[in-house]
Amino acid sequence: MFPARIDMVTLGVANVAASRQFYERLGFVASGFDSKDVTFFDMNGTVLGLYGRVPLAEDAGVSDKGDGFRAVSLAINLASQEAVDQALGFAESCGGRIVQPVREVFWGGYSGYFADPDGHLWEIAYNPFFELEEDGRMQLPPPAR
Amino acid sequence: MFPARIDMVTLGVANVAASRQFYERLGFVASGFDSKDVTFFDMNGTVLGLYGRVPLAEDAGVSDKGDGFRAVSLAINLASQEAVDQALGFAESCGGRIVQPVREVFWGGYSGYFADPDGHLWEIAYNPFFELEEDGRMQLPPPAR
Repeated sequence: MFPARIDMVTLGVANVAASRQFYERLGFVASGFDSKDVTFFDMNGTVLGLYGRVPLAEDAGVSDKGDGFRAVSLAINLASQEAVDQALGFAESCGGRIVQPVREVFWGGYSGYFADPDGHLWEIAYNPFFELEEDGRMQLPPPAR
Repeated sequence: MFPARIDMVTLGVANVAASRQFYERLGFVASGFDSKDVTFFDMNGTVLGLYGRVPLAEDAGVSDKGDGFRAVSLAINLASQEAVDQALGFAESCGGRIVQPVREVFWGGYSGYFADPDGHLWEIAYNPFFELEEDGRMQLPPPAR
């Protein structure tokens, strides 16, 4: 009835071209569907969309007023602390703003955060408790029941 | 250097247990890793995490102040208009708040939005231009270059 999927995460941005350039510097490759108004990146199982903040609000039928913490973060899990250091350093060199420097976290992992040009939060993490699939993705423990 | 993946989308929520119940009513099955503080759902290629809004802000090293539009939406793409109608109706019956009733959209698709208990936006869409994989996910056109 209701599928457990996230097919796309769309970020509302002030300037689609500038935001696209930022993500292309990170190495993401835009699909051939792009226009000046929207960009899509294949994120290995889900899609990252970039769309204007105002038209995104209009599309959702909500006010575009809002600021501060968005209560959403996107995470990439890597296989070691060193890989986290390198990826966060690379993000910073591409213009990402480090909002949380890497550190060991209370739950036993290691992570840091950067913000994209619009303040969207990305966490880069090493989690020694979750196995990674061959393609790098997190493997959750099975349901308890 | 920097992987094009979204391994997890974490939503900051006011009440993890209430939010978990909402998503369980939708049919999502929590992994065995859960605690009262955090819940993970396998979303067929990425993970949906629920975590307190305040500790999520702390984890990211940012202020937890903020309200209004979050400039983020999560989307599920379905194979027909009827499937969109059914899924949105089901979400509403589970306590989702319809913020954008289904309608034909200017780009040729058909979609509507609901908000979860914390106002996080989910779009349910039929897009006649993007093929769906066997597992239902969107298939982007290849890069232009």
